[in-house]
Amino acid sequence: MSKLNEYIKELDSLNFKDMYMNDFFLTWEKTRDELMATWTVADALRYLRENNISTRVFDSGLGISIFRDNSTRTRFSFASACNLLGLKPQDLDEKKSQIAHGETVRETANMVSFMADVIGIRDDMYIGKGNKYMHEVADSVDSGFKDGILEQRPTLVNLQCDIDHPTQCMADALHCAHEFGGFENLKGKKIAMTWAYSPSYGKPLSVPQGVIGLFTRLGCEVVLAHPEGYDVMPEVEEVAKKNAKESGGKFIKTSSMSEAFRDADIVYPKSWAPFAAMEKRTELYSAGDFDGIDRLEKELLAQNALHKDWCCTEELMKTTKNGKALYLHCLPADINGVSCTDGEVEASVFDRYRDPLYKEASFKPYVIAAMIFLSKFKDPQDILKKLEERGRKRIFG
Amino acid sequence: MSKLNEYIKELDSLNFKDMYMNDFFLTWEKTRDELMATWTVADALRYLRENNISTRVFDSGLGISIFRDNSTRTRFSFASACNLLGLKPQDLDEKKSQIAHGETVRETANMVSFMADVIGIRDDMYIGKGNKYMHEVADSVDSGFKDGILEQRPTLVNLQCDIDHPTQCMADALHCAHEFGGFENLKGKKIAMTWAYSPSYGKPLSVPQGVIGLFTRLGCEVVLAHPEGYDVMPEVEEVAKKNAKESGGKFIKTSSMSEAFRDADIVYPKSWAPFAAMEKRTELYSAGDFDGIDRLEKELLAQNALHKDWCCTEELMKTTKNGKALYLHCLPADINGVSCTDGEVEASVFDRYRDPLYKEASFKPYVIAAMIFLSKFKDPQDILKKLEERGRKRIFG
Amino acid sequence: MSKLNEYIKELDSLNFKDMYMNDFFLTWEKTRDELMATWTVADALRYLRENNISTRVFDSGLGISIFRDNSTRTRFSFASACNLLGLKPQDLDEKKSQIAHGETVRETANMVSFMADVIGIRDDMYIGKGNKYMHEVADSVDSGFKDGILEQRPTLVNLQCDIDHPTQCMADALHCAHEFGGFENLKGKKIAMTWAYSPSYGKPLSVPQGVIGLFTRLGCEVVLAHPEGYDVMPEVEEVAKKNAKESGGKFIKTSSMSEAFRDADIVYPKSWAPFAAMEKRTELYSAGDFDGIDRLEKELLAQNALHKDWCCTEELMKTTKNGKALYLHCLPADINGVSCTDGEVEASVFDRYRDPLYKEASFKPYVIAAMIFLSKFKDPQDILKKLEERGRKRIFG
Repeated sequence: MSKLNEYIKELDSLNFKDMYMNDFFLTWEKTRDELMATWTVADALRYLRENNISTRVFDSGLGISIFRDNSTRTRFSFASACNLLGLKPQDLDEKKSQIAHGETVRETANMVSFMADVIGIRDDMYIGKGNKYMHEVADSVDSGFKDGILEQRPTLVNLQCDIDHPTQCMADALHCAHEFGGFENLKGKKIAMTWAYSPSYGKPLSVPQGVIGLFTRLGCEVVLAHPEGYDVMPEVEEVAKKNAKESGGKFIKTSSMSEAFRDADIVYPKSWAPFAAMEKRTELYSAGDFDGIDRLEKELLAQNALHKDWCCTEELMKTTKNGKALYLHCLPADINGVSCTDGEVEASVFDRYRDPLYKEASFKPYVIAAMIFLSKFKDPQDILKKLEERGRKRIFG
Repeated sequence: MSKLNEYIKELDSLNFKDMYMNDFFLTWEKTRDELMATWTVADALRYLRENNISTRVFDSGLGISIFRDNSTRTRFSFASACNLLGLKPQDLDEKKSQIAHGETVRETANMVSFMADVIGIRDDMYIGKGNKYMHEVADSVDSGFKDGILEQRPTLVNLQCDIDHPTQCMADALHCAHEFGGFENLKGKKIAMTWAYSPSYGKPLSVPQGVIGLFTRLGCEVVLAHPEGYDVMPEVEEVAKKNAKESGGKFIKTSSMSEAFRDADIVYPKSWAPFAAMEKRTELYSAGDFDGIDRLEKELLAQNALHKDWCCTEELMKTTKNGKALYLHCLPADINGVSCTDGEVEASVFDRYRDPLYKEASFKPYVIAAMIFLSKFKDPQDILKKLEERGRKRIFG
Repeated sequence: MSKLNEYIKELDSLNFKDMYMNDFFLTWEKTRDELMATWTVADALRYLRENNISTRVFDSGLGISIFRDNSTRTRFSFASACNLLGLKPQDLDEKKSQIAHGETVRETANMVSFMADVIGIRDDMYIGKGNKYMHEVADSVDSGFKDGILEQRPTLVNLQCDIDHPTQCMADALHCAHEFGGFENLKGKKIAMTWAYSPSYGKPLSVPQGVIGLFTRLGCEVVLAHPEGYDVMPEVEEVAKKNAKESGGKFIKTSSMSEAFRDADIVYPKSWAPFAAMEKRTELYSAGDFDGIDRLEKELLAQNALHKDWCCTEELMKTTKNGKALYLHCLPADINGVSCTDGEVEASVFDRYRDPLYKEASFKPYVIAAMIFLSKFKDPQDILKKLEERGRKRIFG
């Protein structure tokens, strides 16, 4: 099985020892080697599964998920990843529980983790809250483990926070690498991360932030385009600038969608809410000012409506590299005439890219599984080898 | 293990090669050999489990369920079937997701299926909708598989639609075969599928339709009895007629419950809503006319109340073959003086048949498992043999 | 592996043959040997897991849970226990089903149990109801098994009823045994099971009742302290008296918290509702008198507020044995200045005991697993030995 050996050899060349017994919060907290290791393990796990070799490394154990926002894709990706490794997904429905803030986070985190090997959390609703909450949970189980309460240390996987959406963006990047023939081929490629109009309000910032924070690591020319006032978090822009400098890439801002699309190799047109408005919303929420939230929502929808021209049209697509830029989206997209009258993308563009879009999504379960795998095994190369040797079939026969 | 060999020999004599990589929508879309294969595999899986031999053929993989109607029995049957084969049941709760119609069905179906081996759907609420929706989902994942998005092709299992309830009716028939000493002994047996009074409204048509569509395959004399106006879908009656002709059975309609019961070997008294009313309800629903739906409901309840005499009484039971017809019901039944004042069946009749009724239900998990099994394995006989050879115990010891 | 042999030797010395194929309702329905066997198996399973040896004894099978009250801790404990043994936890959400009283309990219990090896139930809300309901379920599946409907007999595990909370109290006791160096060292120890103030209303009686019913078995001096009118069920007090007599322990009642704490080795300060009020509440509920329930609630809160001085303070803790009594709680606790203004315990006391409290909770999954294990295997010593020999790793490597 020469292919698996290639993945193992790739891993041999990387330094990712700090991922062992560690968590995954933000891609820019990881070294380039650590990201490469994650992608390599994702590919290796996929390779084994495609060859009907079971990658079940846990004979028992729970994979806990906490979704503080509706979710289908990520919920199933997490469940798939857990199942692929042998963990039983167990959702903590906060409506049926008492998990909250302060002391109780520490307590509940430990109470549910006696047999948990991973905790996946989506908490993207309020600026300054989600990532913080995840750290509270991770710190809680980390001390639980150190204090001898937990027999194992559950790994925290960020399934989307207010800052980053690492499992999505890592899947996006792995998809691009597969489409362009490897990560080295992404160097110098122009990617347009642009705002697009949507009739809905308050979409999270974590995708555009995650994309500019990650693709600048890969030597890409990352263009962030949005109308005036639709800024993302300034500290993430700083991260993108720094990353671009280090990787030999570029980070450029513009308020012109057409400028961003011109000669782009990859386009990612997607709606999001202005950072400042999201901050204001969090304040209103904390103050319990729900009338204020309603007013803000109306203002934002009116403001959005001024930018209906920010749409990924056939015309715009023609201006990309050879008219054939790779179109990305985290899905579901707002498609003109399908899910709404005016939206993020014209139906014919979306249709043409349907297969690649679905493939893009298909990497997410493997990326999550790789994050878990790398935090659980000191010598993942050895485990991959042993899985091949064990040769247990995923489907009997 | 001679018994297992008998099942394998039976399978050897049947042609069911088209079930491989295929779905299960309606029993009358399957050949008689295919139905026999399903029952035989159900029996074989049960035999192995009863002998403490694990039938776990999947080391990982998801079994997705979508319930568009409340469900306990079918939910647990599907979960049991998945678990028996090693799949992890994962429910797609549409309240927490965005799955809908048109484009989105295709998308969500693929998004949740990256590691899914089966999708089970119950959608029986609206005439002309449920089966159609299932086909949309099946087509979506079928193209997903062909386009290289999905690594495996999830099988669709109809857990009840507007037309048929194949897992229920296949379990009913397998139960009858066990009670009467084999399918060949069902030939010529009279089965009374009759309407019965219930104080509730709008019970699905899929059970009576499924029963007349299936038992006419088995050479039975199938009598469909109901008050004026309580017709089932005309196209299913056509199916029943055609089936009866081909199998050497009979399909007879009557508006007299006593005529149906007379000398019957099997009786299946059960409430359902008139087809025409259900069609009207679907139209009102589509038009958003909820007042109209309320009015319709009241009309139907009043109409039902005219037929309280349609009850499976001791007196009626006495008129069946030797007074001992096998009483069937998909459960829960409306039992006089127990779950309602007047209902489908007298308490003493129900009590006498409690054990057989529960046994009837016990076949459902195995029928579902058999449907999955046959769509996953090209040579199921070989797999059954290998499971016996592997000899892994379900309970360790 | 000498440690495992010690557990096995301990089991060899005990008579627990009646636990095979049996249920677990109340600790005082079990012999002392049976309780010791449960704790010993819990320790043995923990030992194996800590040594990375899989205790998966089921290759398939469901573990059904029914929670008639919100639950996080017990829900995850039950799911963990099932998973540890290889069972798939499957929750029966009564909102999505029709399980009710009378006939239907019998039916639904059988319908969900075709592949169930255990049923865990929490039903603690109404005096005279919960335990009764559990017996109905257990009797239903017991006849189902005897009548040939169920291929296996699901074990019932009481996850908290109106009378006892055996999985909690068994975990509490096992924790104490670990802290004090063995069950024999609990003999003669003074444990103060005392009421404490909480701003909430209607907390179940099952914990104080379970504690006085269990710790009196262990030769402890059990002091039950509460304000006038906060009595527990009189029949459980009788149980406690009888137990104390037989074990050489003591059962003492007092209405002084300080008297209870004086020189105590273990303290368990916790709020509960007066038994008589809970009985009244059940009557009002049965009569559908919701205004009456509201009135009762207000009365009880006002009555509670007269006893804010019933708090586990630093001052009180100083009066315990060497000022270092072991502080127990089933969690979550009402902590002064943290989860409420005035509550059951001062924050500094709670903080000091956080680690032991979390460890106390960590025994629950193992206690539940042991209850299942002992009801499933005639010769658990042999199974434990074989698990060690099999040497399958929980985490691959």
